Amino acid sequence: MTDETPREEFSPDPIGHTDVWAGMSVGDLVAEYGKAGIGAADLHHAADIYTEMLDDDVSVFFGLAGAMVPGGMRNVVADLIRDGHVDALVTTGANLTHDAIEAIGGKHHHGRTPEDGTAREHDERLRDEGVDRIYNVYLPQEHFALFEDHLRDNVFPEIEETVSIREFVRELGRANLERNRADDVAEGTGVAAAAYEADVPIYVPAIQDSVLGIQAWMYSQTSEFSLDALADMSHVSDLAFAADSAGAVLVGGGVPKNFVLQTMLTIPDAYDYAVQLTMDPEATGGLSGATLEEARSWGKLEKSARNATVLGDATVTLPLLVAAARERAD
Amino acid sequence: MTDETPREEFSPDPIGHTDVWAGMSVGDLVAEYGKAGIGAADLHHAADIYTEMLDDDVSVFFGLAGAMVPGGMRNVVADLIRDGHVDALVTTGANLTHDAIEAIGGKHHHGRTPEDGTAREHDERLRDEGVDRIYNVYLPQEHFALFEDHLRDNVFPEIEETVSIREFVRELGRANLERNRADDVAEGTGVAAAAYEADVPIYVPAIQDSVLGIQAWMYSQTSEFSLDALADMSHVSDLAFAADSAGAVLVGGGVPKNFVLQTMLTIPDAYDYAVQLTMDPEATGGLSGATLEEARSWGKLEKSARNATVLGDATVTLPLLVAAARERAD
Amino acid sequence: MTDETPREEFSPDPIGHTDVWAGMSVGDLVAEYGKAGIGAADLHHAADIYTEMLDDDVSVFFGLAGAMVPGGMRNVVADLIRDGHVDALVTTGANLTHDAIEAIGGKHHHGRTPEDGTAREHDERLRDEGVDRIYNVYLPQEHFALFEDHLRDNVFPEIEETVSIREFVRELGRANLERNRADDVAEGTGVAAAAYEADVPIYVPAIQDSVLGIQAWMYSQTSEFSLDALADMSHVSDLAFAADSAGAVLVGGGVPKNFVLQTMLTIPDAYDYAVQLTMDPEATGGLSGATLEEARSWGKLEKSARNATVLGDATVTLPLLVAAARERAD
Amino acid sequence: MTDETPREEFSPDPIGHTDVWAGMSVGDLVAEYGKAGIGAADLHHAADIYTEMLDDDVSVFFGLAGAMVPGGMRNVVADLIRDGHVDALVTTGANLTHDAIEAIGGKHHHGRTPEDGTAREHDERLRDEGVDRIYNVYLPQEHFALFEDHLRDNVFPEIEETVSIREFVRELGRANLERNRADDVAEGTGVAAAAYEADVPIYVPAIQDSVLGIQAWMYSQTSEFSLDALADMSHVSDLAFAADSAGAVLVGGGVPKNFVLQTMLTIPDAYDYAVQLTMDPEATGGLSGATLEEARSWGKLEKSARNATVLGDATVTLPLLVAAARERAD
Repeated sequence: MTDETPREEFSPDPIGHTDVWAGMSVGDLVAEYGKAGIGAADLHHAADIYTEMLDDDVSVFFGLAGAMVPGGMRNVVADLIRDGHVDALVTTGANLTHDAIEAIGGKHHHGRTPEDGTAREHDERLRDEGVDRIYNVYLPQEHFALFEDHLRDNVFPEIEETVSIREFVRELGRANLERNRADDVAEGTGVAAAAYEADVPIYVPAIQDSVLGIQAWMYSQTSEFSLDALADMSHVSDLAFAADSAGAVLVGGGVPKNFVLQTMLTIPDAYDYAVQLTMDPEATGGLSGATLEEARSWGKLEKSARNATVLGDATVTLPLLVAAARERAD
Repeated sequence: MTDETPREEFSPDPIGHTDVWAGMSVGDLVAEYGKAGIGAADLHHAADIYTEMLDDDVSVFFGLAGAMVPGGMRNVVADLIRDGHVDALVTTGANLTHDAIEAIGGKHHHGRTPEDGTAREHDERLRDEGVDRIYNVYLPQEHFALFEDHLRDNVFPEIEETVSIREFVRELGRANLERNRADDVAEGTGVAAAAYEADVPIYVPAIQDSVLGIQAWMYSQTSEFSLDALADMSHVSDLAFAADSAGAVLVGGGVPKNFVLQTMLTIPDAYDYAVQLTMDPEATGGLSGATLEEARSWGKLEKSARNATVLGDATVTLPLLVAAARERAD
Repeated sequence: MTDETPREEFSPDPIGHTDVWAGMSVGDLVAEYGKAGIGAADLHHAADIYTEMLDDDVSVFFGLAGAMVPGGMRNVVADLIRDGHVDALVTTGANLTHDAIEAIGGKHHHGRTPEDGTAREHDERLRDEGVDRIYNVYLPQEHFALFEDHLRDNVFPEIEETVSIREFVRELGRANLERNRADDVAEGTGVAAAAYEADVPIYVPAIQDSVLGIQAWMYSQTSEFSLDALADMSHVSDLAFAADSAGAVLVGGGVPKNFVLQTMLTIPDAYDYAVQLTMDPEATGGLSGATLEEARSWGKLEKSARNATVLGDATVTLPLLVAAARERAD
Repeated sequence: MTDETPREEFSPDPIGHTDVWAGMSVGDLVAEYGKAGIGAADLHHAADIYTEMLDDDVSVFFGLAGAMVPGGMRNVVADLIRDGHVDALVTTGANLTHDAIEAIGGKHHHGRTPEDGTAREHDERLRDEGVDRIYNVYLPQEHFALFEDHLRDNVFPEIEETVSIREFVRELGRANLERNRADDVAEGTGVAAAAYEADVPIYVPAIQDSVLGIQAWMYSQTSEFSLDALADMSHVSDLAFAADSAGAVLVGGGVPKNFVLQTMLTIPDAYDYAVQLTMDPEATGGLSGATLEEARSWGKLEKSARNATVLGDATVTLPLLVAAARERAD
């Protein structure tokens, strides 16, 4: 038995060993992660920080990258918005496209890849059959036509001039909500509708880079409608300026991550909290995989900010993190 | 609302959207993953398969790679052994070294990397202070000396000739157990002791590639003791041959993964179930990251085998998988 | 010696073994890669396809993601533009910001991380000293102030209304060129200037998500200047429509990759050639790491298109690919 | 133009921008990488260090993991051995199995995956047709039978007792050489034969974890032949002890990497040089992806050692590194 003098290079608590049991709660599991090392320790740390961020005084800027809505994270995010845990959402046109498709009754599908591996469908065949693939999620192309109808019937008529992207998305949220209720669609109203109801702004800096953007462009060809690429920046900057305490939740990388972080370059302050869930490798040198420490060199995070990065698939880690933080915050 | 005719390329169930709530159990969470796509769907699928494998009739060959014991997975694995859910364990000398260090009262530590990032200790300094680092897990080097004493006092004296690696590790398990109880060490007895008690064989094909192997080699220099590199292969082959139904659990890659899989090249049958938890990229072309489909081309998996790969940190996914399968199996 | 009957599942040529020799050319090396398997085979395949794309009849849409200009790829891309091998460039505001900083005499720096590891500079210290870090590339913040001056003195005065992003970037290229020549800056004129001279359009769908975008926004606050988010989409769609044969070069993922690919959703045709250099993992489900086969399901690639993905750091693989294709095309 | 005072946190040389040209040599290309950042800078650094290691006074311990021989790297490694640039090779049974298959006239094949993607062969079909797949490399199973004949006819008869793994592999190298010459096989004699001729030891710590190991085990069932798992450790330790200056080249991770590094735990010294080519992610916590800085904490690298890690596919980076270092060393 050694009698160890505490050493400066160690945390005060030695590594324990994670226990699991039938029926344990997600909060229990994350507490057990705290005993372990490697990535489990990071997830525990992130849950600690996110639990603090659920506190009302923290303004949460939430970045939601690419395929999270078609990947099944729509309700997790919509519920956070509804419960007041998101103050600004930065996302992609793709997420909003797929969110609207579900709001009006469309469905994404699990790709059928039978366990015996004999029937892996080829992308050529999908093309022939009019099915778009997003990794293991399949979407029949007819939903894009129904989405176009929705925009032309319910969204564009309400806008007759150049607006900010935020204002355009707000109209989309309103229309999703109305259509969802009118048609009594069982699936939830979704992210844009929740943001509309809760008056939470959604920023989509790269909106033209999506089916939503293509539809907006097509409509702009025959109308006075257009989108101002710069108009939302004052809005998000003011929001950051007004925050007593600010936190960033970054699900995936890309433009949503960078835009959430760069907002702090427009004001004197920086984030006090940041949690990042990513599979992007740091070594690309790109922003998507960049550490939060790198963000500190730019002044996007306070030097004293609490931050954690969880490396792993966000469809796994986001529900885990949110369930644990909600259990703790209760 | 579209009236969709079912299509061959879709699973019958559309993608739903994962819901989370405060206090949900890990089994609830994994059930919710089943609604989602991308990696969450894989984890749900793996839990389904692993729940079937917990059935008594399936012989489970469990591969446990590198840093899982110092990373905190010692109890999860030891409890599975104790509860009869592991029929053969293939692991590394490193895992057994760290397992023994804990059994005799040593501790690993969380590296102190303060949240403000100012005090990241340098590896040079760790070297000066006699601390070995395994990613974010730190171990004072004096534990290796205590481990050497343990081997020389309690393990080697019981073996006086050339033995198989399995027999050597069995003695280690016995010694860990006795020493752990004699010293009343609070931390659990560990993996090797659990395997000794449950009479589960542990195979360590690359034992010389570890501190345990170095100690064995040093002792062999002054004694008749040695290890037969080939002797365990009949044992594991017989075990596989005798199995009515066989399943592989692969935590990480490396030799444990390959050895578990290649065992099926020595008998006419192959695995009926396989679950792999890995962060190794497939594109290296190496076995660690290879898909289980590749194993099928070699006849290591039955053509009809159920298999799933979960990409992510095993310190996160292993406890999650085990807790969910235990809840379901209950 | 076996007398093998050719089998359908094999390519006609067996795997050879790569030879290397002192003084071999990059073209020789890539030819040797063609003998090997795993990633070397992919790089050889990509070089074959890219050599065909250097043919004049192929319209090349080039996506250049995040950190490639600060990472040192500025001349490689600018020279391709100058030599007529790029018909449209889609990139980020960040790349254009760093391109302009170099054009007006600023310098990026290799971070000093001495080989003995003793002096790893901390991001907190970098913050104190006013140095921004991009992975291992460091930039003193004063260059951003000089960049702002450049925009205010040489770019914004030429634009007095709402313009498309492409038109704004064209003015930046012109100003970079003039300033670079006037100041006799040794470093090349760069990407935007080359595109200006060669009359190649640059599209920046997410321009607000960059320092360039922040500057544009600040200027818009006190002027009639603004940017139309949708105006470039007709331009790029027309360009794709007019192409006899179209090829995509995708360096990194993000918005540049998606925007290059989605352009084909606006016209009846699709890409005939595509080469992708990426480190983004497919398994995120995100578009950055998506395979080009997935793009085929959407109709972004022709079913018969030739395509290759090279997994690896683009600062290594882009110069390698370009040097080899230039040698072959000669 | 700024007049920058040199700062401590910068390297003295600013980042330049890589130029490429038709016909440039691989050495030219790597020199150009030295101007760039991100991974190109690492490759340049690694080439610098490896060029120094080609100096005769440095003893080179070379770790060669998994699929490198079937992947096409057989000649690159064999030529380094022949030219005196490898003093000890640590590799896997798999590499030696595939090396011998080629030495006696067998062939690996590029998998046929046509560019239009219509004919992706399924692993089930490969199984039916008796073809084993290693990522994109295919091998007909009959070659394993011919390999077994080779061992039984030419290798095992020469050994009648328990030997070290090194001695066994030396006999394999001799037999490959003789058989290759007798049959006049066009393909080179390979890695084991080159090591036999140059009297370079090959260590295979996990030999039982391979088809070569399975064959050895089967032969041991009916003979006095066996392999001593510990016997080579004195040999490699002595070699390290005798080295004036020692360098590690680590191609891939796994047991070869760990065994090369751990050798320094058995002597007072450590590596003076280390170059690592890997795609394994650091964040697994496993040794395969571990940084060389971590090795420094263990005393496996000298505190003053020069070391570089190149992240990328070794079938691409190994030939690139070797060609560049050979050109420079000339």
